[in-house]
Amino acid sequence: MRKEERAMFPYEEPLNLGEFYNLEEPLWVTAAQLRGLMEPYLTEERQEKIAEVIRGRTYQVVTVMEGLHDLGNVAAVLRSAEALGFQEAHVIDTQPKHKVSNRITQGADKWLDVHHWRDRLACVEELKRRGYSICVTHLEESRPVEEVDFTKPTALVLGNEMDGVTDEMVELADQRCVIPMGGFVESFNISVAAALILYEAARQRRERLGGVGDLTEEQQRVLEALWYVRSVPKGDRLVQELWRRSKSEEVG
Amino acid sequence: MRKEERAMFPYEEPLNLGEFYNLEEPLWVTAAQLRGLMEPYLTEERQEKIAEVIRGRTYQVVTVMEGLHDLGNVAAVLRSAEALGFQEAHVIDTQPKHKVSNRITQGADKWLDVHHWRDRLACVEELKRRGYSICVTHLEESRPVEEVDFTKPTALVLGNEMDGVTDEMVELADQRCVIPMGGFVESFNISVAAALILYEAARQRRERLGGVGDLTEEQQRVLEALWYVRSVPKGDRLVQELWRRSKSEEVG
Repeated sequence: MRKEERAMFPYEEPLNLGEFYNLEEPLWVTAAQLRGLMEPYLTEERQEKIAEVIRGRTYQVVTVMEGLHDLGNVAAVLRSAEALGFQEAHVIDTQPKHKVSNRITQGADKWLDVHHWRDRLACVEELKRRGYSICVTHLEESRPVEEVDFTKPTALVLGNEMDGVTDEMVELADQRCVIPMGGFVESFNISVAAALILYEAARQRRERLGGVGDLTEEQQRVLEALWYVRSVPKGDRLVQELWRRSKSEEVG
Repeated sequence: MRKEERAMFPYEEPLNLGEFYNLEEPLWVTAAQLRGLMEPYLTEERQEKIAEVIRGRTYQVVTVMEGLHDLGNVAAVLRSAEALGFQEAHVIDTQPKHKVSNRITQGADKWLDVHHWRDRLACVEELKRRGYSICVTHLEESRPVEEVDFTKPTALVLGNEMDGVTDEMVELADQRCVIPMGGFVESFNISVAAALILYEAARQRRERLGGVGDLTEEQQRVLEALWYVRSVPKGDRLVQELWRRSKSEEVG
């Protein structure tokens, strides 16, 4: 595995379920153990569907939403990201008010890694540390999205509905992109803009890499284990219970 | 001019303004005459903006919306079509209720040729007669939108929010296309889907033809004349008045 690939994929084995589910103590488990625990609760068809979707997943292009006012738009962006295979998203909201409605995302966020931030600088620094190029959507001094290389680790930053990305974010950015337009209407709806750029990223990856997804077999198995838990009603509670039982059997 | 280009461009000189503005008698005028009448009412800046937008316009790809329930979606599709340079749109509504709200299109429809139909067969027959290949968006037995050739005359048919295009429309179609997707979410919002396909069409045309727009100089001047009228408040009334005056001066 190239160093780059490892840095993009955010999980390492063994997985600490204590961290995922806010438990008081750590609960270490390998992906294989986790899959083994959950498999009896999933149909084969479901398992195959999960494997298929995960083959199309990537962390190389992540979506960052900066201060969107309308949560319907946040949800719509997540829906498009999910449908196109982009697994990680960041929502920067310096004045958080609401939870994102499940109705509008059609459950898309359930299958994504969505990170919420109050501090834009902290978000950008973390993404830069992991090796992402920060690409803001901006109308000035920008190059067409077709010229951005989405086969490289890229964090696509979308600004709010009225003003776009903040000046601070433009300063922090490594590149600027714009959707080529030629009409009297000088802008797209934010959810349309996001979908267009993510589609372009997906198209480039299909054309140059043969597909959007790029996880190694090992990484796919790890993500699969986590999705198995999400696929079962109250899966997080169940996995704790099963894990405790299996440990006590080992001891006994 | 190739026959194909002539068939796609819908206007012929002299223009009959009587037909455009539902007058009782025909009012024949050339594009040059019309531009001459309206020029004093437009700033040079405005004239340049109009010329620039028209250079990016095409009739080779037209949008057809079949039975959309939500007029907000119709408006959003028109907005995307306008921003990307696709000049003609057709709205099929077998049970018409409302006018499209201007607020949501941001005035996009003002700069488009939007045709309203009650009868889907009549619409399709007219488009076929003019030489368009009818391409429906459909989930079954379809090829990815990237494989559709949008440099050829194509009518892109979008179905309604719940059921997609009707069976009757699928029967009438020459080709079927689908947006490649790889998530648990199996569909896009209709306005997002429309924007994605029109963006793909625009991208292909930029890549293969050097630009979206393809009107001849002569055609550009004709469209320009019509837009000059739309750019002036009550331009339609004004042009009738000016035309009458110029004719009476000729006689006198």
